[in-house]
Amino acid sequence: MKVIVDLCVVPLGVGVSVSRYVALCQQVLEEAGLKISLHAYGTNIEGEYDQVFTAIRRCHERIHAAGAPRITTTIKLGSRIDREQTMEDKLASVAAQRRNLP
Amino acid sequence: MKVIVDLCVVPLGVGVSVSRYVALCQQVLEEAGLKISLHAYGTNIEGEYDQVFTAIRRCHERIHAAGAPRITTTIKLGSRIDREQTMEDKLASVAAQRRNLP
Amino acid sequence: MKVIVDLCVVPLGVGVSVSRYVALCQQVLEEAGLKISLHAYGTNIEGEYDQVFTAIRRCHERIHAAGAPRITTTIKLGSRIDREQTMEDKLASVAAQRRNLP
Amino acid sequence: MKVIVDLCVVPLGVGVSVSRYVALCQQVLEEAGLKISLHAYGTNIEGEYDQVFTAIRRCHERIHAAGAPRITTTIKLGSRIDREQTMEDKLASVAAQRRNLP
Repeated sequence: MKVIVDLCVVPLGVGVSVSRYVALCQQVLEEAGLKISLHAYGTNIEGEYDQVFTAIRRCHERIHAAGAPRITTTIKLGSRIDREQTMEDKLASVAAQRRNLP
Repeated sequence: MKVIVDLCVVPLGVGVSVSRYVALCQQVLEEAGLKISLHAYGTNIEGEYDQVFTAIRRCHERIHAAGAPRITTTIKLGSRIDREQTMEDKLASVAAQRRNLP
Repeated sequence: MKVIVDLCVVPLGVGVSVSRYVALCQQVLEEAGLKISLHAYGTNIEGEYDQVFTAIRRCHERIHAAGAPRITTTIKLGSRIDREQTMEDKLASVAAQRRNLP
Repeated sequence: MKVIVDLCVVPLGVGVSVSRYVALCQQVLEEAGLKISLHAYGTNIEGEYDQVFTAIRRCHERIHAAGAPRITTTIKLGSRIDREQTMEDKLASVAAQRRNLP
């Protein structure tokens, strides 16, 4: 099953700046061969369910190993069985609707 | 690694009421032997990382199989390697801090 | 418009323990006269839209004033115009569906 | 207080496609003069706290008025008082850290 996920990892106990840990996570996701897109409050990920969640687990392991004693993570997960839909499809769909608005 | 998770599944394309699908998910989590606690906007889950996410995957399969063509899910995930902490510990910790406030 | 909200505040830059700040937030919500219910990964809140969000804003002010330089917050917000629904209604609805499952 | 927000609105009871309502919301945010950036699972928003939340409230009113009986919304909210930070700053900070990784 294909999924589109939005992942936001927040390490605690490492001070006020968390970008190093977000970069580590981005590296893990890319190493996993996943299609990703970083935005200002998380990372969009597209892939097979198990592949995505295996990579997310590795993000947590890597961030803890890099010194973060605690992590709070927010994940949004979209799955659908009626049709395939990519991240680009979702954005194109909103853009098309936007053009139809008065 | 032990985790505390908050899970909120929202099936789309099944009308305005989603409680049947939340109940299905609750059943899956209990069958998995996980410690859970339902609240008004999700379900707290405590368990081993892999056990929790295997059960969450089964929730999605069960909800799709029950007729929901699309699901959007929100997951909060807390992991820590500095010490073990249960759901009750977290609530007790806030309550203790609350008593110390002026 | 009545809403049911789930609020999770996470102060950054204050070390690994955040319970003092969650307790402060709980105090603010109670002072606002809101109906709340704490769980292991956030706080359910029921009330009028503006009253709830005014209180959430005060939580942020209070937490920053107490020394947190940065906060990341997750809010789930449910609104409906087809009928009134309380937090207890939502839980009762899932429990009723649960009894109907095979 | 400046904030960076990630907003994801999900109307229920309107079928499986929700892009029309996301487009409506995007229109409201732009009318409010806010700086926004759409991604595949939500919309990043940057602005003053009250201005952002006033616009989010109008999104909900507009979506209900357009026929959605129920909405579930996920909001991530970042606030900091140690320094100003834009959405571009956050992305640049992660990119810089990424270049430093082995």
